Amino acid sequence: MSDATRDIEALIDLMARLPGLGPRSARRAVLHLIKKRGQVMAPLARAMADVAASARECATCGNIGTADLCDICRDPRRATGEICVVEDVADLWAMERGQAFRGRYHVLGGTLSALDAIGPEELRIPALVARIRDEGVREVILALNATIDGQTTAHYIADALEGTGVTVTSLAQGVPIGGELDYLDDGTIQAALRARKAVQ
Amino acid sequence: MSDATRDIEALIDLMARLPGLGPRSARRAVLHLIKKRGQVMAPLARAMADVAASARECATCGNIGTADLCDICRDPRRATGEICVVEDVADLWAMERGQAFRGRYHVLGGTLSALDAIGPEELRIPALVARIRDEGVREVILALNATIDGQTTAHYIADALEGTGVTVTSLAQGVPIGGELDYLDDGTIQAALRARKAVQ
Repeated sequence: MSDATRDIEALIDLMARLPGLGPRSARRAVLHLIKKRGQVMAPLARAMADVAASARECATCGNIGTADLCDICRDPRRATGEICVVEDVADLWAMERGQAFRGRYHVLGGTLSALDAIGPEELRIPALVARIRDEGVREVILALNATIDGQTTAHYIADALEGTGVTVTSLAQGVPIGGELDYLDDGTIQAALRARKAVQ
Repeated sequence: MSDATRDIEALIDLMARLPGLGPRSARRAVLHLIKKRGQVMAPLARAMADVAASARECATCGNIGTADLCDICRDPRRATGEICVVEDVADLWAMERGQAFRGRYHVLGGTLSALDAIGPEELRIPALVARIRDEGVREVILALNATIDGQTTAHYIADALEGTGVTVTSLAQGVPIGGELDYLDDGTIQAALRARKAVQ
């Protein structure tokens, strides 16, 4: 095996570690990149090196940015007294795409899990409590996933915030927009029925 | 949107162009990379830049390497008088993984297609005819995909090589190793039956 083949094999191995790609699709992706090495591969390598060099976690909320404080924590217009608690940066991005929330975030970095020995300290929960005190927060919106671990974590946070005077809310559960009842699981239908609203 | 977010968005857009990744999985992959920016993202960016800078097509066979001639065309032990014709470099890699063929390759770069206006000139078929003359080839093995376009191309090449004195063969069709009859399509079963062999 020559250097060329070794370089390409090394690249395939690295690509295959990405979530959503296996060895076979990594090979296909690398071959595609080599065919378009001018237009796609070189810019992609550059973009990746740039982000690898500059990305870091926000010291306050855990979001990803290029400075000690992320864009959202630096923006004074977002000091609305509301903090939205999410499990992961991906969830923060999803909330931002929704363009409905104008406050700040707190990224837990996971959920409580006895199995994986993940306790409150691993999840920035003490940091959340400190922020509520320091930033004059009025409302904490729990935007955690509707999984068992997510809901356990939500209960734990609600308990931890009791007595701080902050309002704790969570995202509504119900039928997704465009969702068909026939395809929904029983739990969602039950939750949507329990939370039914008067029409008009 | 700050520079940081713009850089990350640009990276996601580039990743989303890879085959097998869409916008959503590109986002997930980029987030994974950012979390492991030291161990995975920086090495991946470097490996990609290296391959982008060094990769080129072999002038003789169309394989990918780092020099004008690829490793296989440079290796004198592979001058066996056999050329295996494949559609794509991915197929060449698949043949090499099989470790059964010890000759050289000829990568067509696609199949004949009236719809996409791909004729023999686009497919290095004239180059193949020239190689057979110049390299003293005895046998051409057509390892083209068992699709309509692949088989059309195989027939065209067999016709083009008529009168050159070279033996033209193609890969056997039949039941894949480990394949279950119940899951095979009718065409494969018919081909396997037509090509049945005496046991012993």
